[in-house]
Amino acid sequence: MTDQTKNRIRKFVEDRDWGQYHSPANLAKSISIEANELLECFQWSDTDYDLQRVKEELADVLVYCQDMLDALDLDEDEIINMKMDMNAKKYPVEKAKGNNKKYTEL
Amino acid sequence: MTDQTKNRIRKFVEDRDWGQYHSPANLAKSISIEANELLECFQWSDTDYDLQRVKEELADVLVYCQDMLDALDLDEDEIINMKMDMNAKKYPVEKAKGNNKKYTEL
Amino acid sequence: MTDQTKNRIRKFVEDRDWGQYHSPANLAKSISIEANELLECFQWSDTDYDLQRVKEELADVLVYCQDMLDALDLDEDEIINMKMDMNAKKYPVEKAKGNNKKYTEL
Amino acid sequence: MTDQTKNRIRKFVEDRDWGQYHSPANLAKSISIEANELLECFQWSDTDYDLQRVKEELADVLVYCQDMLDALDLDEDEIINMKMDMNAKKYPVEKAKGNNKKYTEL
Repeated sequence: MTDQTKNRIRKFVEDRDWGQYHSPANLAKSISIEANELLECFQWSDTDYDLQRVKEELADVLVYCQDMLDALDLDEDEIINMKMDMNAKKYPVEKAKGNNKKYTEL
Repeated sequence: MTDQTKNRIRKFVEDRDWGQYHSPANLAKSISIEANELLECFQWSDTDYDLQRVKEELADVLVYCQDMLDALDLDEDEIINMKMDMNAKKYPVEKAKGNNKKYTEL
Repeated sequence: MTDQTKNRIRKFVEDRDWGQYHSPANLAKSISIEANELLECFQWSDTDYDLQRVKEELADVLVYCQDMLDALDLDEDEIINMKMDMNAKKYPVEKAKGNNKKYTEL
Repeated sequence: MTDQTKNRIRKFVEDRDWGQYHSPANLAKSISIEANELLECFQWSDTDYDLQRVKEELADVLVYCQDMLDALDLDEDEIINMKMDMNAKKYPVEKAKGNNKKYTEL
């Protein structure tokens, strides 16, 4: 996400005085709620979906994720790279290649 | 997210030959599943949470969102700005300021 | 659910003094969290799932639903029949038969 | 749930020829989607919720759970009691009483 987009999201919240509702807990609920509006696009079929609606719902998930990063003053790249380091250990290429088992079953 | 981080996520998937599992439908399920691991951090309390676990689970949500952007060849900034245009119409400042009602009730 | 099973669930909560955590909001989070552990059984495949785990996770969803019915003093059959009356109007047989469109698109 | 209510749910599905869409995977998605419509009742407040909407959304979760029990030919009381046996071992009264830690942390 560019800084311009991030700042647009922040200004949107600020203009509406919505920071008061953006506790981490409320944002976690919001991310799940929007993730399930995204999931609804695939409720009855994996392949016959409305791409425009998928874009809108995925955008909503991403906006609330940015709100949560802001609420907790976190850096997206930092937490993702921290987690990718963990994932690389949990899913070594030689074990995980071409299979989708959970690391606890590898 | 920097291009470096995006490319790390893509290489991670490629190295494990996991693209075959990354249908939009499977990724929508994955985003919801990770969103709920994030929500679990706040299951019984809004304020007493494990920040390290929050970072890990939020990172997981963001990684699967990036996987979905990649699977559908979407640009994050484009879809977010498209959605923010819609949100600005649904939630005009003068009506939405300081209240958390859904646009259908504004 | 038999009254015996309902009473077992209630006694389980009572014995552990967990009623204090069972606000409707916390139970709504819990239902979503367990629903996503159920969804995880189908994360990468619709057909290759662990039936034992499906049973356990579906049971968890049902237990938290019962906890919520208890917390709000609701009768399961009453709310389901009330909702089924609504569904019957939203999805008349002649329009809904054999298609899975949402009522807003019928 | 009474047999009468269960049979009403089954007849509703049958009349609309919807059994074809009721794979366990689709029903797992549906349970999560409805659980999040329930969660939406508590998105911004734990205490200021619309009870009528809570009833409707909780009913939707319960209906899809019944659909899943039917699709997999499972008995509700059997799977719940099986899971309660497991829970009783994971959460012994003397350890779990009055605290909400996960069994892995008890």
